[in-house]
Amino acid sequence: MGNIFGRRPAAPGGESRPPVVMGSHVDSVPTGGRFDGALGVVCAIEAVRALDDARVLTRHPVEVAVFTNEEGARFQPAMLGSAVLAGKIPLEDAYQARDRHGIRLVDELERIGYLGPEPCAARPMRAYLELHIEQGPLLEEAGLSVGVVEGIVAIAWTRVTFHGDQDHAGPTPMRTRRDALVAAAEVVRSVRRIALELGDGPVGTVGWLDVHPNIVNAIPGKVVFTVDLRAPSDALLDRAVAGLDAAVRDAAAAEGVRVEAERMMRVPLTRFDSDVVGAIQAATESLGTPHRRMLSGAGHDAQHMATLCPTGMVFVPSIAGKSHCEEEATDFDDVERGANVLLHAALRLAEPV
Amino acid sequence: MGNIFGRRPAAPGGESRPPVVMGSHVDSVPTGGRFDGALGVVCAIEAVRALDDARVLTRHPVEVAVFTNEEGARFQPAMLGSAVLAGKIPLEDAYQARDRHGIRLVDELERIGYLGPEPCAARPMRAYLELHIEQGPLLEEAGLSVGVVEGIVAIAWTRVTFHGDQDHAGPTPMRTRRDALVAAAEVVRSVRRIALELGDGPVGTVGWLDVHPNIVNAIPGKVVFTVDLRAPSDALLDRAVAGLDAAVRDAAAAEGVRVEAERMMRVPLTRFDSDVVGAIQAATESLGTPHRRMLSGAGHDAQHMATLCPTGMVFVPSIAGKSHCEEEATDFDDVERGANVLLHAALRLAEPV
Repeated sequence: MGNIFGRRPAAPGGESRPPVVMGSHVDSVPTGGRFDGALGVVCAIEAVRALDDARVLTRHPVEVAVFTNEEGARFQPAMLGSAVLAGKIPLEDAYQARDRHGIRLVDELERIGYLGPEPCAARPMRAYLELHIEQGPLLEEAGLSVGVVEGIVAIAWTRVTFHGDQDHAGPTPMRTRRDALVAAAEVVRSVRRIALELGDGPVGTVGWLDVHPNIVNAIPGKVVFTVDLRAPSDALLDRAVAGLDAAVRDAAAAEGVRVEAERMMRVPLTRFDSDVVGAIQAATESLGTPHRRMLSGAGHDAQHMATLCPTGMVFVPSIAGKSHCEEEATDFDDVERGANVLLHAALRLAEPV
Repeated sequence: MGNIFGRRPAAPGGESRPPVVMGSHVDSVPTGGRFDGALGVVCAIEAVRALDDARVLTRHPVEVAVFTNEEGARFQPAMLGSAVLAGKIPLEDAYQARDRHGIRLVDELERIGYLGPEPCAARPMRAYLELHIEQGPLLEEAGLSVGVVEGIVAIAWTRVTFHGDQDHAGPTPMRTRRDALVAAAEVVRSVRRIALELGDGPVGTVGWLDVHPNIVNAIPGKVVFTVDLRAPSDALLDRAVAGLDAAVRDAAAAEGVRVEAERMMRVPLTRFDSDVVGAIQAATESLGTPHRRMLSGAGHDAQHMATLCPTGMVFVPSIAGKSHCEEEATDFDDVERGANVLLHAALRLAEPV
């Protein structure tokens, strides 16, 4: 699958013990930044170097993991490498994923020398730790260096299609129109309202919207759009989804358009392991690092790894909350503090001898 | 330019008199119907045949005109053939128009044998008459066979760009978002409201809307869309445009997004010639054809021809008001009544001997 694992051996006699794995991904998105993913891999390598420099031996092996195709920018779905490792997606299905030019993932893995001989299969692991940029503004706003991540928000993706009447924008009176874009615009506003009404946690986004035929002087006959809803609990997400469904029905009825709605994805709240989160918390406290507990608003490889072994994440601040853009940045003082938390949490879990 | 003119000679001694021209276009839009344009050409030819069959001689020559690229589906702008004839667009500029594959109009005209030796230049014309489908529901709703068209509505096209903050749809709290699509959705609703508030005549349409980056889990950083506003008077259109400008400003301010607005096109109300409209009216009355006076909500070649000679149009009903689609249709009894009105109006203007 192209996932990469590098191992630092355990102290003598410990080699059969399950490893403590630190990792993330090194793929990015078009016009993305240098931090999303790569930082977690670089900090994991640096943590291993620090163990070497200090000649620390551990009872468990320590590994660095690099997962393939986390972003899903070229091959869908996202988080593909960790999904295959976790058994969520069969390896053969992943191999057949094609980019928009029709090139298969398996052929590209072979071409770049990533189609290794090792099976992509789960094995016992002591823990998985992932350092990642926050991709939001909360840590920076609070002046904190590290987020102790307790889990990943529940996520629901819905695809909505409104079918109206495509007509000429000139001779068609307003009173007879069934404009698919007017109905969609109503839902865009409702998504904002629904998220705000549910308090500070839930978020809702219409990120993808296509208009047909998309001509200046044609009343839109069809609009397809997606709604991304996220919440810090499954119950809150249920309320957001119910609100969306009602808003879609109301908008369709008001404009007289036909509606199709399809649930693309529903991921329940991921709760990270309390021992691993506890080890990260203890590391921040022992290092005196300013931190807070938080949920991740984005999916990560850690989500799949959490189904295989005790898992936790360390967040570092994103300047201005920005990610997936060239301005994506983290102050290097915060990077150092985050890397030290990662190192010390891994060391606690790998047990120094 | 590929415009085609066919002439029926005048009665002896009349050949130097300016001709009465009937015509329209035969190009269509993708997945369009059989009536838009072609019907006006077919009815003009049928009218000339009827003159021949009845051995009617006229003091003025009678011509049939077919204009190139009225729809603008392949080469922009629309109404290109009549625009060049009217001197609105230089012939050389029109020749250089390219389709989306980069093919030039002049090369396609040559390839299909349409690059004739005649200059595309204005010359004296007694009148221009165009029969066309209504493309709206008014005639059908009123049970009428013919519309006596007094002019073409005033039209304003505006392109609006909202620049927000592209961010990850997960970790970005609602309160910090500057979502370009939320602002655009507000304007889509305002366009509907503005048109309705100005009464039965004005119409407003957001037909074209592009979202960037258009990814399910990215807050839209940029949205570009067009607003097509039309009104039965220049004063009403001014009010609609002012309402749009205010709505765009308000939506940008409310969401904290940056706005660019560009006026793409402004066409004042076209008033057709009262003598020609009178000849059409007289023809409907003499034939006992159920009719009404009306404005055209869409642009037509007649708009450019009106700058060259006295001009008028005859509308026939569009079933269910539909056009630019495969269901586009007109009852053939109505086609016959419309063609007779066209014939008799042309005959009045060409003066039977």
